[in-house]
Amino acid sequence: MMPVATVRVLFADTDAMGIVYYANYLRWFEAGRVELLRRMGMEYRELIATGIHLPVTEAAVRYLLPARYDDLLEIHAGIGELGRASVSFRYRIVRSDGAVLTEGSTVHAFTDDAGRVVRVPPGFRERTGRRPTAGEEG
Amino acid sequence: MMPVATVRVLFADTDAMGIVYYANYLRWFEAGRVELLRRMGMEYRELIATGIHLPVTEAAVRYLLPARYDDLLEIHAGIGELGRASVSFRYRIVRSDGAVLTEGSTVHAFTDDAGRVVRVPPGFRERTGRRPTAGEEG
Amino acid sequence: MMPVATVRVLFADTDAMGIVYYANYLRWFEAGRVELLRRMGMEYRELIATGIHLPVTEAAVRYLLPARYDDLLEIHAGIGELGRASVSFRYRIVRSDGAVLTEGSTVHAFTDDAGRVVRVPPGFRERTGRRPTAGEEG
Amino acid sequence: MMPVATVRVLFADTDAMGIVYYANYLRWFEAGRVELLRRMGMEYRELIATGIHLPVTEAAVRYLLPARYDDLLEIHAGIGELGRASVSFRYRIVRSDGAVLTEGSTVHAFTDDAGRVVRVPPGFRERTGRRPTAGEEG
Repeated sequence: MMPVATVRVLFADTDAMGIVYYANYLRWFEAGRVELLRRMGMEYRELIATGIHLPVTEAAVRYLLPARYDDLLEIHAGIGELGRASVSFRYRIVRSDGAVLTEGSTVHAFTDDAGRVVRVPPGFRERTGRRPTAGEEG
Repeated sequence: MMPVATVRVLFADTDAMGIVYYANYLRWFEAGRVELLRRMGMEYRELIATGIHLPVTEAAVRYLLPARYDDLLEIHAGIGELGRASVSFRYRIVRSDGAVLTEGSTVHAFTDDAGRVVRVPPGFRERTGRRPTAGEEG
Repeated sequence: MMPVATVRVLFADTDAMGIVYYANYLRWFEAGRVELLRRMGMEYRELIATGIHLPVTEAAVRYLLPARYDDLLEIHAGIGELGRASVSFRYRIVRSDGAVLTEGSTVHAFTDDAGRVVRVPPGFRERTGRRPTAGEEG
Repeated sequence: MMPVATVRVLFADTDAMGIVYYANYLRWFEAGRVELLRRMGMEYRELIATGIHLPVTEAAVRYLLPARYDDLLEIHAGIGELGRASVSFRYRIVRSDGAVLTEGSTVHAFTDDAGRVVRVPPGFRERTGRRPTAGEEG
């Protein structure tokens, strides 16, 4: 996992408990995922243009410490497992003082424009430097 | 204007000031607009299916009193002006005790699938029972 | 699990992939959780007023089928496990034709106003009709 | 008005029409407002700590061109008018190719912790370099 983006907490992100609303971390996970791919040389926008989509099939978050208004946060993201037709990402939201606030993961299928599951494109596999995970091998 | 929907304020809607975040009223305006059209016999989903879109070109909100967590709110909506190629809606968010919390309006263009401005479809004009406003007459 | 609320999908809920954005299901889970408690005789607002909070410590979602604009959805919610100082909820989002779109769960700690973990209040235990789960017994 | 922040459009920001949802510009206006104040030497967080709040009383947006997924946007913000107990901000969202996508404004009251309207604090007036507008003079 590596830091890929920095965000400042807005009132928009918080709720009446004075902390960031629990759904909004998934938004930062998206920002992390997209920037991670960009650093690996893959624009998600271009992936879509070639007919490859990555719909999310699972998401999980562990809330360790709350983020608060005006906190400066670092989004860390990394590739988890790369299967034959799926990929998982891992995330960590880290406050500017180093405290880890949340950890999470998402699983995504590879699909074509019609929503049919397809194999991981070769270019994706090369750029992430991952082989298929054992359990998902043919 | 008439009441068209009821909503309960969630933590999702609020911010760290303990009140509903100012952008979220526009979400309720959307809910009101869609339900108003439905009551007039127009499903916005079907309008889109026939190639008619109503992109918003202007929005305005006046915040009179804050909505708070768990408040029960009534969304009021009405047609404002119907031009040759545009329509405006008016909204009011009313708390269960009758207090008016916000007032607002949106202006929408009529466009086709390609985003080109088109005239108000005859069916829309009939169902809303409005003639074009004077200033916008041909 | 039982149906506790009905929602209509707005444009506000969707994204440019034409389906509901993955984070927004957590919003509906909140709506389900609050309505479930209300039906059990517990207003979350009143719980807070007595100094009891239920911050989320974990959330998980499985996305089975996408929800789309204007879909009518039923939120199902139920109590999962009731520990000594925590409670989990389970959720299901069901489309009007009966298709299960997402399944999820959240885990919450019981805390006081200062954020210190406290035991499940007796009233909460009675109303949910749950004993502590074996693994969490003292 | 000056550029104060840059944002990349996420799927989170868009809707099923393929463009940024109309309410989400208000979120970027908040980001712009906060960064503008920071550049003027005022942290909104500190303002709150001193018992000064800036609740929004009006918001208006003109949607000129839609923002789309992955667009890189510049948020421009400036002080509009500074009254005796209120301040307005102006905003412009500009795409990386220079196209102005939206223009907007918000009006805010100055209040104390109890929500009572108060005069503009001297420090605020100095840092923004604005005198009260004629119409609002005592």
